[in-house]
Amino acid sequence: MGRPPLNKDTRLCISLAGRPSNIGTRFHNHLYEVLGLDFLYKAFTTTDIAAAIGGVRALGIRGCSVSMPFKRDVLALVDEVEPSARVIDAVNTIVNDGGHLTASNTDYLAVQRLIDQYALDPAAPVLIRGSGGMASAVGAAFRDRGFGAGTVVARNGATGRELADRLGYEYAPEVGSPTAAVLVNVTPIGMAGGPEQGQQAFGTDAIAKAHTVFDVVATPAETPLIRAAREAGIPVITGAEVVALQAAEQFERYTGVRPTPEQVAEASAVSRAD
Amino acid sequence: MGRPPLNKDTRLCISLAGRPSNIGTRFHNHLYEVLGLDFLYKAFTTTDIAAAIGGVRALGIRGCSVSMPFKRDVLALVDEVEPSARVIDAVNTIVNDGGHLTASNTDYLAVQRLIDQYALDPAAPVLIRGSGGMASAVGAAFRDRGFGAGTVVARNGATGRELADRLGYEYAPEVGSPTAAVLVNVTPIGMAGGPEQGQQAFGTDAIAKAHTVFDVVATPAETPLIRAAREAGIPVITGAEVVALQAAEQFERYTGVRPTPEQVAEASAVSRAD
Repeated sequence: MGRPPLNKDTRLCISLAGRPSNIGTRFHNHLYEVLGLDFLYKAFTTTDIAAAIGGVRALGIRGCSVSMPFKRDVLALVDEVEPSARVIDAVNTIVNDGGHLTASNTDYLAVQRLIDQYALDPAAPVLIRGSGGMASAVGAAFRDRGFGAGTVVARNGATGRELADRLGYEYAPEVGSPTAAVLVNVTPIGMAGGPEQGQQAFGTDAIAKAHTVFDVVATPAETPLIRAAREAGIPVITGAEVVALQAAEQFERYTGVRPTPEQVAEASAVSRAD
Repeated sequence: MGRPPLNKDTRLCISLAGRPSNIGTRFHNHLYEVLGLDFLYKAFTTTDIAAAIGGVRALGIRGCSVSMPFKRDVLALVDEVEPSARVIDAVNTIVNDGGHLTASNTDYLAVQRLIDQYALDPAAPVLIRGSGGMASAVGAAFRDRGFGAGTVVARNGATGRELADRLGYEYAPEVGSPTAAVLVNVTPIGMAGGPEQGQQAFGTDAIAKAHTVFDVVATPAETPLIRAAREAGIPVITGAEVVALQAAEQFERYTGVRPTPEQVAEASAVSRAD
């Protein structure tokens, strides 16, 4: 369809990140083109997050995606915080309705959607490896979908215990020989280009006993963990699914239009192409 | 050449106006295309000018064109005010250098350039009809180029006298039978679509005695005043020249690139097309 020529009524959406990438800019603008929406998306950074969010409000910027290190700071700068952001004290999406800013967390929402979509059983014990911001979103999504028995595994005892306590789960410093039905990796283990590239977040024994293996790492498309689970015939949920779902959710909140899964997949591919 | 695809490093320039139009958006984006510059321009309005300018600074928005009713308010919101804006207490251009905002007035600068370009003689008496913001810019440009003898003609006695006093010129409530060498119209008389459309800001007798007739009205391209002066063989300066020069000045301040007069003329035509 193609985007209309840029004009005074074109809606602007932006991202705010410590280190902006081109991924969001490409993803959203590609979908504006495909869907013929009079929107424009552009990544920004700032050294003054309060003034930047004040500018979003005053300039009528329609949407603002929030990345590190601003996810927590913006909580105090918006008019309304949805439960998705409140439960984990982290925002990744701000929608501006005529100067009224509403914050949400589409990572949390995407994980909940995947739990529903794959019909994971809340009675199943879940093991979450990791204790950073994304682990917090994933853990809260499981807990809030009724998963009562869980373990948080993290090398960092302070953040690991804190997250486990918050979720009402157990804490363990090492993976050991887990028997959890749902294994979730929310560490950088296996991430392309990272220090633990090529490594597998859970051992083959643990994978064989699991009902579902969920890796939040999105690059490579098939992490060592996902490959091992597929080889063992265990159902998987991939990081690419999380990324695509959260982006679709964000896109819909900004534009009112829900892209199809195929459109999202294509936009994701475009956004990561070099 | 074409603009590069939108990316995280694309520089954004904006305008802030009570009633945004598409003219600036079309003008600047057309030239970005023609010159292959990685810039983007978009019109905005706001109900909170302080937060909007704070957002310009915090988001690293490169340039901000300022229209009514914000031209005076922004003086207190920037870090530096150039003489071009200070002499008339009105800003139409803000440039952001890494968070340092500098305000200027390219209308004033454009009129000075035209005075130089047409080699107008500072010894010649000048008559300025009008006492609004643009009349203030035009009057200051003449005075600061050394025009010592001048008259401000305005129906509004308060603003007319105030401007005349500020410039060190005479004030007159009516045009009468002027003998000024330089006649300048800075009222809406003769403006297409206005209540005085088709009217002539100065009479044929006055035109015949002038050395130069200068009409700041830019639409139509040939106002009744300009047409009458041309028919009388008197040299003219048109509003279109002011608009093009001020826009080129603004464009250069934002991008560092000076478009050619031909490129400016084409961009002006594009920006006003329907």
